[in-house]
Amino acid sequence: MSNEHNAPRRLRLGMVGGGQGAFIGGVHRIAARIDDHFELVAGAFASDPERARASAATLHVAPERAYADYRAMADAEGQREDGIDVVAIVTPNHLHFDVARTFLEAGIDVICDKPMTTTLEDARALADLVERSGRFFGLTHNYSGYSLVRQAREMVAAGELGELRVVQVEYPQDWLATRLEDQGVKQAEWRTDPKRSGPAGCLGDIGTHAYHLARFVTGLEVESLAADLHAFVDGRVLDDNVHMMLRFKGGARGMLWSSQVAPGRENGLRLRVYGSRGGLEWHQEDPNELLYTPQGEPPRRLTRNGPGLGEAAMAAVRIPPGHPEGYLEAFAQLYSDFAEQIRARHANREAHSLARHTPGVADGVDGVLFITRALESSRAGGTWVNL
Amino acid sequence: MSNEHNAPRRLRLGMVGGGQGAFIGGVHRIAARIDDHFELVAGAFASDPERARASAATLHVAPERAYADYRAMADAEGQREDGIDVVAIVTPNHLHFDVARTFLEAGIDVICDKPMTTTLEDARALADLVERSGRFFGLTHNYSGYSLVRQAREMVAAGELGELRVVQVEYPQDWLATRLEDQGVKQAEWRTDPKRSGPAGCLGDIGTHAYHLARFVTGLEVESLAADLHAFVDGRVLDDNVHMMLRFKGGARGMLWSSQVAPGRENGLRLRVYGSRGGLEWHQEDPNELLYTPQGEPPRRLTRNGPGLGEAAMAAVRIPPGHPEGYLEAFAQLYSDFAEQIRARHANREAHSLARHTPGVADGVDGVLFITRALESSRAGGTWVNL
Amino acid sequence: MSNEHNAPRRLRLGMVGGGQGAFIGGVHRIAARIDDHFELVAGAFASDPERARASAATLHVAPERAYADYRAMADAEGQREDGIDVVAIVTPNHLHFDVARTFLEAGIDVICDKPMTTTLEDARALADLVERSGRFFGLTHNYSGYSLVRQAREMVAAGELGELRVVQVEYPQDWLATRLEDQGVKQAEWRTDPKRSGPAGCLGDIGTHAYHLARFVTGLEVESLAADLHAFVDGRVLDDNVHMMLRFKGGARGMLWSSQVAPGRENGLRLRVYGSRGGLEWHQEDPNELLYTPQGEPPRRLTRNGPGLGEAAMAAVRIPPGHPEGYLEAFAQLYSDFAEQIRARHANREAHSLARHTPGVADGVDGVLFITRALESSRAGGTWVNL
Amino acid sequence: MSNEHNAPRRLRLGMVGGGQGAFIGGVHRIAARIDDHFELVAGAFASDPERARASAATLHVAPERAYADYRAMADAEGQREDGIDVVAIVTPNHLHFDVARTFLEAGIDVICDKPMTTTLEDARALADLVERSGRFFGLTHNYSGYSLVRQAREMVAAGELGELRVVQVEYPQDWLATRLEDQGVKQAEWRTDPKRSGPAGCLGDIGTHAYHLARFVTGLEVESLAADLHAFVDGRVLDDNVHMMLRFKGGARGMLWSSQVAPGRENGLRLRVYGSRGGLEWHQEDPNELLYTPQGEPPRRLTRNGPGLGEAAMAAVRIPPGHPEGYLEAFAQLYSDFAEQIRARHANREAHSLARHTPGVADGVDGVLFITRALESSRAGGTWVNL
Repeated sequence: MSNEHNAPRRLRLGMVGGGQGAFIGGVHRIAARIDDHFELVAGAFASDPERARASAATLHVAPERAYADYRAMADAEGQREDGIDVVAIVTPNHLHFDVARTFLEAGIDVICDKPMTTTLEDARALADLVERSGRFFGLTHNYSGYSLVRQAREMVAAGELGELRVVQVEYPQDWLATRLEDQGVKQAEWRTDPKRSGPAGCLGDIGTHAYHLARFVTGLEVESLAADLHAFVDGRVLDDNVHMMLRFKGGARGMLWSSQVAPGRENGLRLRVYGSRGGLEWHQEDPNELLYTPQGEPPRRLTRNGPGLGEAAMAAVRIPPGHPEGYLEAFAQLYSDFAEQIRARHANREAHSLARHTPGVADGVDGVLFITRALESSRAGGTWVNL
Repeated sequence: MSNEHNAPRRLRLGMVGGGQGAFIGGVHRIAARIDDHFELVAGAFASDPERARASAATLHVAPERAYADYRAMADAEGQREDGIDVVAIVTPNHLHFDVARTFLEAGIDVICDKPMTTTLEDARALADLVERSGRFFGLTHNYSGYSLVRQAREMVAAGELGELRVVQVEYPQDWLATRLEDQGVKQAEWRTDPKRSGPAGCLGDIGTHAYHLARFVTGLEVESLAADLHAFVDGRVLDDNVHMMLRFKGGARGMLWSSQVAPGRENGLRLRVYGSRGGLEWHQEDPNELLYTPQGEPPRRLTRNGPGLGEAAMAAVRIPPGHPEGYLEAFAQLYSDFAEQIRARHANREAHSLARHTPGVADGVDGVLFITRALESSRAGGTWVNL
Repeated sequence: MSNEHNAPRRLRLGMVGGGQGAFIGGVHRIAARIDDHFELVAGAFASDPERARASAATLHVAPERAYADYRAMADAEGQREDGIDVVAIVTPNHLHFDVARTFLEAGIDVICDKPMTTTLEDARALADLVERSGRFFGLTHNYSGYSLVRQAREMVAAGELGELRVVQVEYPQDWLATRLEDQGVKQAEWRTDPKRSGPAGCLGDIGTHAYHLARFVTGLEVESLAADLHAFVDGRVLDDNVHMMLRFKGGARGMLWSSQVAPGRENGLRLRVYGSRGGLEWHQEDPNELLYTPQGEPPRRLTRNGPGLGEAAMAAVRIPPGHPEGYLEAFAQLYSDFAEQIRARHANREAHSLARHTPGVADGVDGVLFITRALESSRAGGTWVNL
Repeated sequence: MSNEHNAPRRLRLGMVGGGQGAFIGGVHRIAARIDDHFELVAGAFASDPERARASAATLHVAPERAYADYRAMADAEGQREDGIDVVAIVTPNHLHFDVARTFLEAGIDVICDKPMTTTLEDARALADLVERSGRFFGLTHNYSGYSLVRQAREMVAAGELGELRVVQVEYPQDWLATRLEDQGVKQAEWRTDPKRSGPAGCLGDIGTHAYHLARFVTGLEVESLAADLHAFVDGRVLDDNVHMMLRFKGGARGMLWSSQVAPGRENGLRLRVYGSRGGLEWHQEDPNELLYTPQGEPPRRLTRNGPGLGEAAMAAVRIPPGHPEGYLEAFAQLYSDFAEQIRARHANREAHSLARHTPGVADGVDGVLFITRALESSRAGGTWVNL
């Protein structure tokens, strides 16, 4: 149990979004509970007062801390003695910016889902605000919480792959292969609606996860990209398939594919990195295994909490090897690392080095820049665009 | 989020065992938190008062409810207005019986780790006591909490495999391939010590899980068995490898293998069931997939929360297909089902039908009977013994 | 045994190239033997007379039919009563064109390795010559001989995937991740040498296989492509990594990746095709399995010679399901289909419909066109180029 | 191409059995062709003269060497100047003994399918005869021809696993899960008929392969066994499922399962061997991979012809890693090794050390002994029986 050495008080968590019928809000709540660093005490779970209250009731949140308006929530919580330490923003994308701004201005730390904003201007404005405010800002690129993703990052950083050459990342799904948005599926509705999702569909929803994962593990920066976005399902406005070629600073090359129309693929996020001295392969649907091949030697199957791992990976596990951890534990890892950073800020100390590498506002800006440039490239017919 | 429809108050949970350095106690605590039906409020985490208090402090348990003696705990909690609703027993095996008896006699529901007791007499006495007490008794054969294990059970019960013929179950590990018990590893120490573990080593620790899983999915009863137990590691008293042939009532036949000396196998619990109309295969290290082959047709890969599943499986999921759930979620599923049953008892109503099939005291007796007969068989040279 | 219905006489096979130290020549010979439609009776296995004779001696080829000069061979064999029926060309790429022309002009059927020629002009000239000559011309895009590749093609053609949307094809290897060409490895030497390999490295060696496979299975034509080729290994002139985006006529989109610098990947040719009604995935390293997912249903594992296959797949197997066939059997399948076509030509009849779809001179032109356009695109910085 | 160093004349091969509708005869013929050490020149492919002649005609065998009676064939071929060097016996089991005896007595080397005979007396008599005759006798336990099976054997022999502890071997199939023997399937008919198959069904057909594989790789001898055989399909006389516990000399223990009623399993021969220093796992349906785990280290995926292999494995490959070889190549490897041994006998020299370890008459006796003892054990109710 890596996360039970001490028991400082649980952090008080608020939430905006995540009412009944939502998906990611529930995930954040489980993630916040798993390692026991948070208690949910307030929320604006919906903009409709009735639904906001009903949702709060199902979540053990006191009625007086169930808000229908996030501005009112920020205001009230910011003034309470026992006000929330941090808010989790789990709304559709178009609200991220204003909600984040509102809480930061109320002096409250922020955990925000991705993509951070729907425009580059907003992203940069938010980065400025975070800097000025001195508050903590965590971005839930949750795949970076997987133990073996951190192992991969550590191995690349230590030079075990040599000079990086090729980076292949992909994230195929199949759930939008038909017009689910016409069938009353709330998740499909907002994700295919530019008013709520922003200008990017599949690109913003999962392409940005793929991009972040590649950056997180390799440490490489994209220099330029050529993107070919397409909406395959009739009548869909936003892209549901993304093809992209990447050139990284320093000379590596790569490809990125994300899709929501690939029958048989559920959440097939996969990263493959090849360097002059070795290769690494990791697949989110089988996350307890990392394939590592030193060039010229047999591939080795590194397992979560198994032999041969470094300290970053070993700090992000809960149970013995062979007992699978999954998506929720990876998400919980981010929450635990966020907790450490928030507590460090409270105590005016440095956060533990292993908890510091969680995605933040700079990653948020980077992700929105990526989306913006990919849209530019695709609109220009798939030409190369510098980042 | 299958478990957030309502919010009755959280059940008050106590724990016996699970102090610092323990493994399974931490798992129980996470499992109890994931679906948010419990709050840990009391504990006898260790018999040493100092360690008991220190452990409580790390677990947000109030000092006055940190006990060093489980009898004192049962007594005090049984009398408190806000006393615990249920105790989780996570000690080494030799204490299960007395702790369970003590809490049942104090009128407190019990969640107990397996094997239930170290003797058949104790197991039967406990079953009597549970019946007389009218209290809830849950046994954490946690693998039965996996969504696709429940799918398998439902398919067998619905006759989709036809008449069952062959049942192959195995649970290999490698962590005891060397004398870890001499290296200060607490988990290895008590598991290889007959005073704390009881007369069965590998057989009681994981063989009993394999046995329960086979019984749970197939619904078959073992008629007779022939067992060949062995301790391969020098100086080890208890078995570290178990070979067994099984004959089931009704004519099916099977094999069971469990081992703690199989290098490369971490927690390789695997069940394969073959009937006249089809076959099913499930592997705990890849638990989000169930391979189903209707005889004469291509195998189908059923995925957790994916297409083609029945209601039992769909009631035991948290997140979309392709986002893996693991060991902790399966364990949490048991805790959620226990909560439903405890609340139903409180409210004097029937528990939801999907929550009723969790392992209980009868499974505990069955498991100890299995261990007892396997030991008899092996001691007699591997002869057939009726159950 | 699908190929033993009749026993017309074995076809007399000659070979150009494939002397000691060569790789693909030996493969062609085994492939020609497996289904017993050919006997090797003549060869110009090397240009050095000594080595030509020595190679012939190891191959049961009579000394008088061991040639050092392929022109002499074409001449002599064209005039013998018992002259060869067909020649297999297994030289480095730069010789394909002239050898093929020479034998066609001598009235001899041709089996040629890929890429067909090193220039588009030669490819087109060869196509003209084949047409004029009336001779058989087979191109060994051998992966099209795999039973389940044919199954995939048949399923797509029958509309089982609906309208095609996304085509992902890749062929990573790792054997050229270091400067093997400096270490006396003949295979590496000629493949990295533009004089013998032509202007394309990895692109011509394996990228063209990936391209053909995608075309063969989907039946789609590429409308335009954007390619980013690179040589990662210091001092290497020809590309060792290929990234490409594809747009197909009719609207499908795709990506192609081939690499010879991906540590851990041996011959990872993989094709994934997604349409409006389903998806298919096939991997050359595990070729006895085809994953088929009807949209909204569980994935099905189709196995070679297993249940649920069509007639094209069932005509391309030798042994029962579960007994793996591999690369050599797929190659043999092409040879068997070539034999049927050659015999049909001899008999002035139509070849069996299932044997007619082997790659021929048109595929050769298409492959060289693909290479040419990819090189143009890459040299222009990765811009889109029409095919 | 490991097998083309020299070209001594091809050995003249005859065949008994293997006419139209047979399975294994065709496999032997392909196997004999792949490495080009044999030419098929004579045969008694069927006992019916018409079918014998028709079969010969499809196999390029001259009419005068197409026999209906194997005794006539042995007689005639034994006297021809150009008579066969070796006969391959591919009949149903009940004929193996007499055919083998007949050819040995005619001074002709023998390649025989397994199980060698249907009684232990015959097996021992055959062993005597082989010894007296001085002829070569090869037994086609073909799985021992796989490159990575030989790697496993070499690693065990070199002590890389330490002292062996646990051996798990299994061979499940599903093709006899229904009464195929009533549907005109010739393969099913004779295999379920004690008159032609002998007293063992699944046990003799595939259980004996599993047994041989375990013995071949580990070098261990079985000391005693307890077997539970059963016929699950109504009306079937011979066993279609085999369960067995094994005790090896020296202390290792194991299990063997073979089945023909396991839906979804095609030819799932799998061997797992665990010792004090490491573990090995190999699966026939994925034969180009061997999983090797040194105790306490990450598992390594050894691939056929890939890095890290020993000389025995490297002598049994044809093509580069990543290009799969399969069942036919493994079978061909035995034929190549047989050729080397036959030529060595002709030349009165020692066969190459790497070719000497093919199964022979002693393995045949051992296999029949195994069958005999397993039948005894099962008939006695599954008691332990010494071998």
